[in-house]
Amino acid sequence: MSAAFDDWMKTVQAHLEQALESFLPAAVTEPARLHEAMRYTVLGGGKRVRPLLAYAAGGVFGADMRTLARAAAAVEMIHAYSLVHDDMPCMDDDALRRGKPTVHVAYDEATALLVGDALQAQAFMVLAEDQMIPPARQVAMMRVLASAAGSAGMCGGQAIDLGSVGVSLTLPQLERMHQLKTGALLRASVVLGALAGRDVAVDERAALDTYSNAIGLAFQVVDDVLDATADSATLGKTAGKDAAANKPTYVSILGLAESQLLAEKLRREAHDALAPFGEKALRLRDIADLIVQRKA
Amino acid sequence: MSAAFDDWMKTVQAHLEQALESFLPAAVTEPARLHEAMRYTVLGGGKRVRPLLAYAAGGVFGADMRTLARAAAAVEMIHAYSLVHDDMPCMDDDALRRGKPTVHVAYDEATALLVGDALQAQAFMVLAEDQMIPPARQVAMMRVLASAAGSAGMCGGQAIDLGSVGVSLTLPQLERMHQLKTGALLRASVVLGALAGRDVAVDERAALDTYSNAIGLAFQVVDDVLDATADSATLGKTAGKDAAANKPTYVSILGLAESQLLAEKLRREAHDALAPFGEKALRLRDIADLIVQRKA
Repeated sequence: MSAAFDDWMKTVQAHLEQALESFLPAAVTEPARLHEAMRYTVLGGGKRVRPLLAYAAGGVFGADMRTLARAAAAVEMIHAYSLVHDDMPCMDDDALRRGKPTVHVAYDEATALLVGDALQAQAFMVLAEDQMIPPARQVAMMRVLASAAGSAGMCGGQAIDLGSVGVSLTLPQLERMHQLKTGALLRASVVLGALAGRDVAVDERAALDTYSNAIGLAFQVVDDVLDATADSATLGKTAGKDAAANKPTYVSILGLAESQLLAEKLRREAHDALAPFGEKALRLRDIADLIVQRKA
Repeated sequence: MSAAFDDWMKTVQAHLEQALESFLPAAVTEPARLHEAMRYTVLGGGKRVRPLLAYAAGGVFGADMRTLARAAAAVEMIHAYSLVHDDMPCMDDDALRRGKPTVHVAYDEATALLVGDALQAQAFMVLAEDQMIPPARQVAMMRVLASAAGSAGMCGGQAIDLGSVGVSLTLPQLERMHQLKTGALLRASVVLGALAGRDVAVDERAALDTYSNAIGLAFQVVDDVLDATADSATLGKTAGKDAAANKPTYVSILGLAESQLLAEKLRREAHDALAPFGEKALRLRDIADLIVQRKA
């Protein structure tokens, strides 16, 4: 990872943190406990992969930083809400997330439910309140986010995941599940960043989607590899859970070595997809490398 | 209730049902169990008070029926999702809703969680996919919906409600809770119906909000009265739950007779607020009467 990329990430993460801070209700605003819990959920944690993607794509498409901050904050809020609900006892029942107690543990289950619900609404609010961008493009961004978040995207993937516990998925079925569960929002992050800059042509959209699908699958393959090889302290979440829950993973289907080869192949596919964007896509390439080479 | 109003309601409800049907993914589309559960949640039930409000306001502001169907379907999806999550064991733990088993009972808790999440996204999708309306007004509609659904609206009211179990709320605190929990989405229903027609002037918006606040509180007062006086079979949900859970209600604070007087006073306030709109507001007046005079 280059020092320049590292600097860029730190700058983006700081810009995002400030944006999230300003787009969330103050912790003293009533109902204070809900707002506190929303801030506990969203602020100060995570790798911010989705916002990084939005900013990197925004760089390619010449986006205004204020609209970009909204795009990045919106996808991060959707991601954060999904983690809160996913961690609840009726789903994965996880007590640890990003090295902190999960929301239903730190607060309570009802609050966790409401935090997730309110964050989803807030994500759309953040996009709807933008006043920099032409309304038609703003509507396009909200359509992309809604589609990625709903039953044709993230929630649909969660539902397939739910139905796959103890079931032997084929590799295409596993890919389909991840393309919805995590891939849809990663794709949306890239497209929202691009739309923050200008309209996206059909062939540009296709190239971005090819990139996003590759890094999305790579992300999951690496997650499975780390889940099988790293410990909880390094991951900041409970390791080995998927295997223990008898959930199908790339490692359980392909084995460890094949999974690592697949991740590298997907990294190259992602790079290739960016060729039409030339030098401007530098940060999108860096992120593909980061996703495959990360240790947690 | 006049026969003409009854006919109008039936027409609107049929129009809405068809719209909801077309705006929800087919039950055979994967993930089928999730989509089935979404349809189980939304289709064929309820009084459709929020859609009725949207259609009635749309009539005042000359809305196109296709945009109006989207506005009405969006508010109903938000309402339906909130009921699913509200009924879950970690919230009200209710087994019966609209005379049918609640979603977590008919399916399971994880599915109920995802159904709610996916329906919220679908509501924004339905508005975002409108191609009839100028984008600036479309963004305004989505902003109104996001605000009404989030922590400054419905979710915020739920959080206050959650924190008020076993607590003696004052009348203003109880009103504030209901203005968020149910009032925000009722207000949004009226405003979305109006915006489906044309831009809404500041004084028009104020008049609509006065109307909505009055019927919103009336709705809750009558709910409390019915909860204290009707039986579960008539209500289609478990009667007497709020009193049993030691939740503050209008009846517990004001008594039954005072609550009934308050509902009638609010009905008159709602009528008065509509004076500027003249004859065109006929259906909004009818709905105020319906809310106060209903038996379930």
